[in-house]
Amino acid sequence: MPDSKIIIETISSQVLQDNPLGDPAERPVPVYLPPGYNDNSHHYPVVYLLTGFTGRGAYLLNDSAFDETIQERMDRLIGRGDVQPMMLVMPDCFTRYGGSQYLNSGATGRYEDHLVNELVPFIDRRYRTLAEAGYRAIAGKSSGGYGALVQAMRHPDIFGALACHSGDIYFEYCYKPDFVKFLNAAHHNDIQSPEALAEFLANFRPKMHPKPGNFFDLIHMSAMAACYSPNPASPCGFDLPFELYTGQLRPDVWQRWLDNDPLTLLQDERSLAALRGMKLVYLDCGNRDEYALHYGARLFCQHLTQLNIPYFYEEFDGGHRHIQFRYDASLKHISQAFRR
Amino acid sequence: MPDSKIIIETISSQVLQDNPLGDPAERPVPVYLPPGYNDNSHHYPVVYLLTGFTGRGAYLLNDSAFDETIQERMDRLIGRGDVQPMMLVMPDCFTRYGGSQYLNSGATGRYEDHLVNELVPFIDRRYRTLAEAGYRAIAGKSSGGYGALVQAMRHPDIFGALACHSGDIYFEYCYKPDFVKFLNAAHHNDIQSPEALAEFLANFRPKMHPKPGNFFDLIHMSAMAACYSPNPASPCGFDLPFELYTGQLRPDVWQRWLDNDPLTLLQDERSLAALRGMKLVYLDCGNRDEYALHYGARLFCQHLTQLNIPYFYEEFDGGHRHIQFRYDASLKHISQAFRR
Amino acid sequence: MPDSKIIIETISSQVLQDNPLGDPAERPVPVYLPPGYNDNSHHYPVVYLLTGFTGRGAYLLNDSAFDETIQERMDRLIGRGDVQPMMLVMPDCFTRYGGSQYLNSGATGRYEDHLVNELVPFIDRRYRTLAEAGYRAIAGKSSGGYGALVQAMRHPDIFGALACHSGDIYFEYCYKPDFVKFLNAAHHNDIQSPEALAEFLANFRPKMHPKPGNFFDLIHMSAMAACYSPNPASPCGFDLPFELYTGQLRPDVWQRWLDNDPLTLLQDERSLAALRGMKLVYLDCGNRDEYALHYGARLFCQHLTQLNIPYFYEEFDGGHRHIQFRYDASLKHISQAFRR
Amino acid sequence: MPDSKIIIETISSQVLQDNPLGDPAERPVPVYLPPGYNDNSHHYPVVYLLTGFTGRGAYLLNDSAFDETIQERMDRLIGRGDVQPMMLVMPDCFTRYGGSQYLNSGATGRYEDHLVNELVPFIDRRYRTLAEAGYRAIAGKSSGGYGALVQAMRHPDIFGALACHSGDIYFEYCYKPDFVKFLNAAHHNDIQSPEALAEFLANFRPKMHPKPGNFFDLIHMSAMAACYSPNPASPCGFDLPFELYTGQLRPDVWQRWLDNDPLTLLQDERSLAALRGMKLVYLDCGNRDEYALHYGARLFCQHLTQLNIPYFYEEFDGGHRHIQFRYDASLKHISQAFRR
Repeated sequence: MPDSKIIIETISSQVLQDNPLGDPAERPVPVYLPPGYNDNSHHYPVVYLLTGFTGRGAYLLNDSAFDETIQERMDRLIGRGDVQPMMLVMPDCFTRYGGSQYLNSGATGRYEDHLVNELVPFIDRRYRTLAEAGYRAIAGKSSGGYGALVQAMRHPDIFGALACHSGDIYFEYCYKPDFVKFLNAAHHNDIQSPEALAEFLANFRPKMHPKPGNFFDLIHMSAMAACYSPNPASPCGFDLPFELYTGQLRPDVWQRWLDNDPLTLLQDERSLAALRGMKLVYLDCGNRDEYALHYGARLFCQHLTQLNIPYFYEEFDGGHRHIQFRYDASLKHISQAFRR
Repeated sequence: MPDSKIIIETISSQVLQDNPLGDPAERPVPVYLPPGYNDNSHHYPVVYLLTGFTGRGAYLLNDSAFDETIQERMDRLIGRGDVQPMMLVMPDCFTRYGGSQYLNSGATGRYEDHLVNELVPFIDRRYRTLAEAGYRAIAGKSSGGYGALVQAMRHPDIFGALACHSGDIYFEYCYKPDFVKFLNAAHHNDIQSPEALAEFLANFRPKMHPKPGNFFDLIHMSAMAACYSPNPASPCGFDLPFELYTGQLRPDVWQRWLDNDPLTLLQDERSLAALRGMKLVYLDCGNRDEYALHYGARLFCQHLTQLNIPYFYEEFDGGHRHIQFRYDASLKHISQAFRR
Repeated sequence: MPDSKIIIETISSQVLQDNPLGDPAERPVPVYLPPGYNDNSHHYPVVYLLTGFTGRGAYLLNDSAFDETIQERMDRLIGRGDVQPMMLVMPDCFTRYGGSQYLNSGATGRYEDHLVNELVPFIDRRYRTLAEAGYRAIAGKSSGGYGALVQAMRHPDIFGALACHSGDIYFEYCYKPDFVKFLNAAHHNDIQSPEALAEFLANFRPKMHPKPGNFFDLIHMSAMAACYSPNPASPCGFDLPFELYTGQLRPDVWQRWLDNDPLTLLQDERSLAALRGMKLVYLDCGNRDEYALHYGARLFCQHLTQLNIPYFYEEFDGGHRHIQFRYDASLKHISQAFRR
Repeated sequence: MPDSKIIIETISSQVLQDNPLGDPAERPVPVYLPPGYNDNSHHYPVVYLLTGFTGRGAYLLNDSAFDETIQERMDRLIGRGDVQPMMLVMPDCFTRYGGSQYLNSGATGRYEDHLVNELVPFIDRRYRTLAEAGYRAIAGKSSGGYGALVQAMRHPDIFGALACHSGDIYFEYCYKPDFVKFLNAAHHNDIQSPEALAEFLANFRPKMHPKPGNFFDLIHMSAMAACYSPNPASPCGFDLPFELYTGQLRPDVWQRWLDNDPLTLLQDERSLAALRGMKLVYLDCGNRDEYALHYGARLFCQHLTQLNIPYFYEEFDGGHRHIQFRYDASLKHISQAFRR
């Protein structure tokens, strides 16, 4: 029986004090310490694991009949020698709307700053980490895959390797079909103005019961708009990229969303330099992803090929859910990358 | 028992001779003659009824447990006095791919010409019609609603009233989600190049058995591309508005689609004049339309309002299917419009 | 172009006069005459083709993008020599509830008598048939497959060959899951007593609009109960095989249903003799039938094997819908059987 | 901030040693200690909370965006005074097939004995419980609701109150539709004999990846058969209630299932005496339960009414999932019952 450990740290954030949604500034952050950590004085590489929309670090510890906890997974991978002893850190960037996309936003809070400027130094202070980008990876799934990709492109000084599982790429396909779901759900809940939406959101609590009908369709796009197109002058604190009654796209707002598409970031020379400097650029996606994210992944990789940026891409048989087993692949690749 | 009649005319088209898809140039066209037609020498108004994708005129005669045939419907409406005695004509603009959108296209054939220049005169020659635009309406559902809207805007000299039920409007919402379905189905059928698609389409026959898996997803978007973005230089005879592997939108091709969006036609002064001259501009749509067509209808009507063009719009409780009963409403409105 | 013909006969039934549901006693019956029928004086074998629930003979003539009409199918099969020139007769045993299962019932009418005692002699009088069982087959799909199987077992003097496509067999699996659908739909429509159900049914017209929510779930099981467990003393004219509030099975009523299960008929020596005398006992079913009818078909065939009764059974890759192409197989087998 | 505690006890079971499925004999059991427990010497009532199929106690601690953990829930309920300070105990009766139904079975292990004879005394030894039936309740959801109902009926000396949320009742409706799912999944996995099923099950591990197609449909009914109709002589260790090829019901095996239906237990005078002695018999169910369990609940309650056994039943608007919020209602009722 390996003597790995899960420590639940609590980090008290400065940048999340008085955040716009009233979410807590204290966040529990599970930390995985590999077997042997307490028996020696080695320093360890660290992987930051970002959960998807509606998730947070603690989620990775959940008991499930059909999946390993992250601790079981790591113990197995390390036990078999597939992965070297490494630490994992599982941030909590959850918001009352379901998630922050790991971005700073005037509508939700400074989650990017929290992650990069607060959590990473906090971990490096408290644990025997190899505290440099070359031994620090960022990985995640879905919105967490998006976060990993974007944060690595923005902070190559912090993260030297990335793994993006089924991440939000090519917003054209991955979000637009959800606009109609939002519109239909708004109609269902008699939300006909930004003011009505603001009131709905003010009253919404994720754990309330019973929940409003089709609440998820409303919350999901509201959360994305809060991340991508915040607007303090709007009753909701953000602009929707479409009109509420006709659904007509608002090109200026939509452009603000597109500015956050990883594909758009590829137009920025600093992002490219960051990717070029990575020890690992890993992407994968299911070939039946319900959000069409395999097309975004292919397109991103096609650009990387054209840009002569090395990467690893694998398309597996599956959809968007029940894909935690893919961490096996990314963690192995990350472990190897750390040895380079 | 009313003595209405259905006559199945056969029209031999010149413009559809040697059409690109090898579809027949002879087309059966059901004609509804109201009760009394054979007992007098009156001339009658005419409604051209356009079926949706995968349909053609004969479809409106199909026996169904849960719906009236068009003859039963008209007999009832006329019998109750809800509708004046009128003729109905049910064109056949079907293609091997499922439909022509009632447009001319180098990839499918000259269906607009067939409808407007061949069928209308043919009917006027053979029947005691009131052969002027003021007594000639065009109506339809889904792709037929699109056809009615567009043909009326293009040919106000031919059609003086229009009814569009759940028609294809705002391509941004009504087609884009189907791109991903096409892409997934192409993958499923190992179609990785325009050549492979061309071969698939060459072998496709609507009544073949067994059919290729997910064939509909392939055929539907192929048909639309054949209508909206024909290209004789392409192996398929048309351009897809996206790349086959990455799904990336091709903006130039997509623009050709948008040029056919009824919303775009509103930018043309002749279309506006046509709409202004109509005795009736009728639109309706279900408030849960699975193709999001209620948003297109709202947007179209919002523009009409801004343009000071009179119209009638009704949003009913329902989806995209099983909405033949809506012909009751449009036929009543058309009948009234003819009296103006 | 073959000169086959569809004649729509109208038969005026005596036994359906004043039937309990007020359905018409006059029925349109399409008859297919093979190419050459009018050019010679031959007598022809006849196949009676029974449609499924919610269908009737005219349904087989419906225009469909993705399927042949019965005339197109026969013309092709005869043209290729796969099938000898034969007549087809397409009965109408529809009721206001969707169908009669081709049975006599005090709650719906005497449809078995109509089919066997009225329609068959009517056809033999009017057409040059080979008017004996050895040249008369009965075939059908779904409820029509049930009808073909049961009527052949009951009337071997009339029908000498049978084909049952995806027929209702093993009621344990094919109907019980629908009981819960009925119960939920009854709840949804506030139907809490047989009286309330009777009122609902009295007001129900198949072509009414808008239809009550989940009407099909109510109508389907009502129709089956009207066929299998009629009871003049009940407000509805039939007994449901379950209690309305608790859903508890009523074993005595359920037994009356089971008495009509083709599997139960196999316990009757006369049915076995009938099957032994058939020139053809053909069954097929999709291996993914949504009503689990492949299990009923397997079980029925297993019994036939044990009873040493010859049969042909084929399980094809497919479900319950879009399986008209299976008529190709059964019609070929029937044609061969007629030659024996 | 209340100072409630979750202690994860580990119980080493004697009766689960060498259980047939090779599942662990050591089980983690979360225990909720109410605020104040450590600050006084009071003795507390205890509720045993049983999770549904595929769950175990630890599951109730899982972090979820849209639901409280059991600790959050209890803290809130106690904090508001809705519930008195009570302990909760969350057993682990999971098996490799997904669950034990909290029964003894030769095919899975002695889970009833473990729960009643091992766990309850273990808790009473270690904690300051009110160690008598009048202050010990059993509650659960789905398979856990079944467990609560059955164990209370069998062990009134141990449990003095019960709450059954959406429990497995009326096997006729709640399991039979799943037989067909099993059969189709067996076909899909080429399982055509009990030996083949035995091999499939021997190789099955809940956390394996990738999982066999439709594995859940196979595992679910296998688990139920292992619980209800164990047979050491069978290759799998249990009998299926149907034949693998035809799906035909095996009445003798099915009767063994029915013997475990809570409705059947109502025929046993000891069960009735047990229910009569309960301080609380609480049932609830969603009115759209996907497993039709509301009909079972209604039927069970109808019997209780006829037997003059007091109970509380509530049918709420909802289905089978996302109903943890119903614990609010049952825990309040249990708390009140303890005061009687």
